[in-house]
Amino acid sequence: MSGERAPPNGRLAVQPVTLEDYRALARESVPLDIFDYVDGGAGDEVTVRANRRDFDELLLLPLCLRDVSSPALAVTLFGQEMQFPVGYSPTALHQLVHVDGEFATARAAAALRIPMIVSVMSSIPLEEVVTRSDNNTLWLQLYFFKDRELTKHLVRRAEQVGCKAIVISLGCPVPGRRDRNLRNEFRLPQTVSAANFRRTERTDFNSPIHSLEGAELDSSATWQDLLWLCDFTVLPVVVKGLMNPRDVEPTLKCGASAIMVSNHGGRQLDTTASTIRVLPEFSAAIAGRIPLFVDSGFRRGTDVLKAIILGADCVFLGRPVMWALAAAGEQGVSAMTTLLHNELHVAMQLTGCASIAELRAQGQSLLRQSRPSSVHDD
Amino acid sequence: MSGERAPPNGRLAVQPVTLEDYRALARESVPLDIFDYVDGGAGDEVTVRANRRDFDELLLLPLCLRDVSSPALAVTLFGQEMQFPVGYSPTALHQLVHVDGEFATARAAAALRIPMIVSVMSSIPLEEVVTRSDNNTLWLQLYFFKDRELTKHLVRRAEQVGCKAIVISLGCPVPGRRDRNLRNEFRLPQTVSAANFRRTERTDFNSPIHSLEGAELDSSATWQDLLWLCDFTVLPVVVKGLMNPRDVEPTLKCGASAIMVSNHGGRQLDTTASTIRVLPEFSAAIAGRIPLFVDSGFRRGTDVLKAIILGADCVFLGRPVMWALAAAGEQGVSAMTTLLHNELHVAMQLTGCASIAELRAQGQSLLRQSRPSSVHDD
Amino acid sequence: MSGERAPPNGRLAVQPVTLEDYRALARESVPLDIFDYVDGGAGDEVTVRANRRDFDELLLLPLCLRDVSSPALAVTLFGQEMQFPVGYSPTALHQLVHVDGEFATARAAAALRIPMIVSVMSSIPLEEVVTRSDNNTLWLQLYFFKDRELTKHLVRRAEQVGCKAIVISLGCPVPGRRDRNLRNEFRLPQTVSAANFRRTERTDFNSPIHSLEGAELDSSATWQDLLWLCDFTVLPVVVKGLMNPRDVEPTLKCGASAIMVSNHGGRQLDTTASTIRVLPEFSAAIAGRIPLFVDSGFRRGTDVLKAIILGADCVFLGRPVMWALAAAGEQGVSAMTTLLHNELHVAMQLTGCASIAELRAQGQSLLRQSRPSSVHDD
Amino acid sequence: MSGERAPPNGRLAVQPVTLEDYRALARESVPLDIFDYVDGGAGDEVTVRANRRDFDELLLLPLCLRDVSSPALAVTLFGQEMQFPVGYSPTALHQLVHVDGEFATARAAAALRIPMIVSVMSSIPLEEVVTRSDNNTLWLQLYFFKDRELTKHLVRRAEQVGCKAIVISLGCPVPGRRDRNLRNEFRLPQTVSAANFRRTERTDFNSPIHSLEGAELDSSATWQDLLWLCDFTVLPVVVKGLMNPRDVEPTLKCGASAIMVSNHGGRQLDTTASTIRVLPEFSAAIAGRIPLFVDSGFRRGTDVLKAIILGADCVFLGRPVMWALAAAGEQGVSAMTTLLHNELHVAMQLTGCASIAELRAQGQSLLRQSRPSSVHDD
Repeated sequence: MSGERAPPNGRLAVQPVTLEDYRALARESVPLDIFDYVDGGAGDEVTVRANRRDFDELLLLPLCLRDVSSPALAVTLFGQEMQFPVGYSPTALHQLVHVDGEFATARAAAALRIPMIVSVMSSIPLEEVVTRSDNNTLWLQLYFFKDRELTKHLVRRAEQVGCKAIVISLGCPVPGRRDRNLRNEFRLPQTVSAANFRRTERTDFNSPIHSLEGAELDSSATWQDLLWLCDFTVLPVVVKGLMNPRDVEPTLKCGASAIMVSNHGGRQLDTTASTIRVLPEFSAAIAGRIPLFVDSGFRRGTDVLKAIILGADCVFLGRPVMWALAAAGEQGVSAMTTLLHNELHVAMQLTGCASIAELRAQGQSLLRQSRPSSVHDD
Repeated sequence: MSGERAPPNGRLAVQPVTLEDYRALARESVPLDIFDYVDGGAGDEVTVRANRRDFDELLLLPLCLRDVSSPALAVTLFGQEMQFPVGYSPTALHQLVHVDGEFATARAAAALRIPMIVSVMSSIPLEEVVTRSDNNTLWLQLYFFKDRELTKHLVRRAEQVGCKAIVISLGCPVPGRRDRNLRNEFRLPQTVSAANFRRTERTDFNSPIHSLEGAELDSSATWQDLLWLCDFTVLPVVVKGLMNPRDVEPTLKCGASAIMVSNHGGRQLDTTASTIRVLPEFSAAIAGRIPLFVDSGFRRGTDVLKAIILGADCVFLGRPVMWALAAAGEQGVSAMTTLLHNELHVAMQLTGCASIAELRAQGQSLLRQSRPSSVHDD
Repeated sequence: MSGERAPPNGRLAVQPVTLEDYRALARESVPLDIFDYVDGGAGDEVTVRANRRDFDELLLLPLCLRDVSSPALAVTLFGQEMQFPVGYSPTALHQLVHVDGEFATARAAAALRIPMIVSVMSSIPLEEVVTRSDNNTLWLQLYFFKDRELTKHLVRRAEQVGCKAIVISLGCPVPGRRDRNLRNEFRLPQTVSAANFRRTERTDFNSPIHSLEGAELDSSATWQDLLWLCDFTVLPVVVKGLMNPRDVEPTLKCGASAIMVSNHGGRQLDTTASTIRVLPEFSAAIAGRIPLFVDSGFRRGTDVLKAIILGADCVFLGRPVMWALAAAGEQGVSAMTTLLHNELHVAMQLTGCASIAELRAQGQSLLRQSRPSSVHDD
Repeated sequence: MSGERAPPNGRLAVQPVTLEDYRALARESVPLDIFDYVDGGAGDEVTVRANRRDFDELLLLPLCLRDVSSPALAVTLFGQEMQFPVGYSPTALHQLVHVDGEFATARAAAALRIPMIVSVMSSIPLEEVVTRSDNNTLWLQLYFFKDRELTKHLVRRAEQVGCKAIVISLGCPVPGRRDRNLRNEFRLPQTVSAANFRRTERTDFNSPIHSLEGAELDSSATWQDLLWLCDFTVLPVVVKGLMNPRDVEPTLKCGASAIMVSNHGGRQLDTTASTIRVLPEFSAAIAGRIPLFVDSGFRRGTDVLKAIILGADCVFLGRPVMWALAAAGEQGVSAMTTLLHNELHVAMQLTGCASIAELRAQGQSLLRQSRPSSVHDD
């Protein structure tokens, strides 16, 4: 893949075979400091690696002779049927990696009929993203800003423009320390800004999204604030960023409509557990009362498959979207997503499950941990 | 081993010391894309590696002072005495790696008195393989084709030509995604084709065996189809490809004569468990009612030994057969098999077991997991 | 970082991003044999590596939506409020790596309001360290010397000069075998000596601190000696170097005021367990009766966080102090410590704990081991 | 160490710091095929590596403040006081690596007052080894030869020359397959032979000791043969090579005087468990009725320490003796042994145990497995 570059027409010279291939393409397509901003994690990136490794330590035990000629991948989320249980996690400033920015991503999501969570830190104003992409199933991600009126105003904009859900990001009251950004003394290029806000200050090269003048994140937010949010918006509220199952009950009490387990792709607190590691605890704690989503480290169809087996209703992608966008704009994002769709399709067939519901019904009888337990020690 | 090539006369310039040595010889003997087709696995090849690693984490505790001067390795399978409990798994298109193709392999198996499972995707018609190799103990592997008449016709051909068993491959309703093939855009050379079928379409470079026009695999097959197969053939039916012990009971109910645990050498669904990992669960579930076979990753005499200890009646080889065939035709296959025989012979002597039956009788008292358990934590 | 050197004015040309960066700077700043003396551990350095690895295998499960706008990091030790629960472990002969020696370190500690344990093997006499650094919260570390009068005399000096505690080092009755020192045939430079003693013999290149003529360590010391020490000094006695929880009760019976779990940074007995590994056992055994300290391998804010969660009242740093001192004297030590403070500050916020007390109260509900346990084997 | 060679006078130019250093010296001192013959193991050398790794996964929890000024390392074996609990395992043909052969080794053992087990395959006749080395505490190792009269004759020679024990090697009824020897087509040089036998056949390059014409090993030996041996000799019989604790009872019934757990340094059956892994099971099964010895992979003082903690009465060295002999003859063997003695001496002091008996009394309270268990999963 070395030396390959996306040609000017936005089509890839080579057809990537895996999602990781898009990472290599992105590495060729954007300056190193921007690549590192997308690719890097907090600290020693222990969590970044755990997010991948823990999938490989969950082993599958496929079932045979079940009619898998037409696996049904569709799922319904907040009343909308999605083509398959994969969506786009919120990532800031898509124009950092491609001039089309969130237009491209939102168009890909619309064409594929999958959920996209637009970051409040998008490089194109929310209204423009919606109208110009013809995507009427977007969800808006936001933070608790110190200025609650600003927070409320953003929710109202989402409601008015037809967003289908609000995704509130928790677990990031302050920016994680991302060593790569610090080493690169990363600053946003002048040509990119958080378009939903009037003015962007670019002094913190660790985490641009935490340095908006007038839109500071509120590290003092509590469950009261979540209650306030769930109360005043008509949209379902997805609580993103939970990692401790003890937070399930307060979330439900506040009236949230879904939970997304996320360690922010390993970008916030290094040595946080992988999400697949804690997913079964969340599934048990939620017990089907609201949908369960998950992101952080998903790269393979079998990763998605395992999350569903362990109780997830939908899986979200972060970095692969940015990689594919960097590599080839909308076409890249679309092709990357289709690739993952195909991997999941095949994985379901080879696991002997003809539908998402069946995967979940089979549950942990399809899985083993990597260490044998059948040979007993005396 | 670098730089060594099999000389034109089919004899090896150097004598391989291990089965893996044949891999190096094969690498020198065939084009890279064909080598990769044989060598590669699905996805990230997690399962390919697990298939090897899990053997190394099963530790032996040999017994002493038992008369091991004449270990008895012979086993009887379907009424035929075999020299030792190792056979050849079905692998497609032997002419891909050596002009003699299945003739060579079948002759080696006949001379060694071990079972060979001819792939329905053989590059030489079944009848020719049987008659020209003088091997009258072949088993025929096949799939559930969409065209059930074709399926039935192939079984009848096997019965007429004197095959001793039918091996039905499960766990492969669709081809696994093999990244190496996809990267290589692998296509079969024009000179090789699936000779049991009239016409071969070569458009799918991921898995040639899944792209036969008129002989499409049936991804809708169910236990009903297995029942149908077991009912209409006079031959014993071996069900190959089970990985979940929950599939044991339906298999027995359908009337199958043996089960082969297989993850297809890690070529179908990546992150599937290793076969040695699940073998004890199968052994417990079958409880001796029918024979238990296993393949995927066997390279050492101790691998075979451990499978027998854990309940296998016979072990089958995939890639090593193709490697040895590539390296030196029949002579290579024969020498490779003899090497493994010798390793198993020595391993039995050093374990203190004088017969296959004794290995199984000693059972798990001969094994420990790699992690110490004797030192307790407070 | 390669090629970077601290400029003559003691300011760093580049701003290190992690504590490990100071290691690279130190490597550039001092001769290799001195670097190795600081950096090396006993034997194969199994314990040195375990000290790091075991932190990475303890996974965090952060809590959300807790007001973390003003985390309180201060702790009170022996009646003194410290800025945050990190101090400097005793390390010998600071002038080995920087001409300012213990002056620099003590000044940094004073300015940051954190505890510093001055080694009895300091390269500057204790009284000078205290008076010239204006640090009135120093603790003095010492050994049981064969000459008990010398031991007593040193304690009296500490009392008179205003030290706040005596730290008695156990677990080092003889020097550990440090292979790097032995290979380097390490000898102290003539310009550095243990200034609290009249005369230094430099014949043992393995461990200079064990070769003082007239100040030999006493390998026959027993609990009686600890009792003697606790009885005659008015200062609190910290017992440093415990690794076996069975030693907790005798320590308490002797009247010690605190316990520091330490494997001496892996420098004494190789293959000793990591301190984070045994910390929970100590916390359980002490049950809050006296403070619990720990050192050995701490490099990240999350390391400190985990130790506090598992029951530590304060964490101490060894090598990082020497690295930062080597790199840039007092300014280096100060910057290194501030970096760790900032990491801990952020880690607390991202874990959802607003105070040290809350971290300890949440306890092990914030942690998981790296291996998933939620998927059960049959 | 690279480039260093032992000078002609048998003294080392550099002083090795670890036992592994002697390996590097040996590599420089003998031809590669001889080095490989000494260094190699069976198969993939999984057991060779496990023999080392399993020591590193046993963690120590030293005790403090116990008088360790004069640790007592002496032990009494078969009525002879040994300087410390380490001896030399039988290794064949010492003249392969040094012209002085068994003379040098036996002299070193005599001077150090430790047990040496002379291999029946010594390159110098037993009587000459004894008389010329003035070592009157040698033990003779032998096999069950097909010719029982030869076996008996060798025992009688050992009795007459004053050997103190007979060590019967089990677990090697046939030679293990050592891939390095097979690759090297290793043959003994003409100048070296098994001097206790009249004639040596050198056709099997895998295992010279298994190819003596007229002295073939008997792979049909059973417990009856051990009973026969224990009955007719007046010497204590050490049974060497047990790995399965089920073999303890028959060994005791036959009247053996000691058991040596051994996997032959990983040279017989690859993937056999490490000896330290099974040692606790043996200790429990023997329950103090006869002494327990162990070899295979010991390189560090802490390795010896751990074996004693887990129940061993003496530890034996194989390869390190050959490495040191190759490097510098008697002086090398002596220095290597002294180095290990010093490491054990220091390790005992740092563990807080003043005698071998105390180490055993403290037992497993001094140990933990490498994986933390104190943090519980929910």
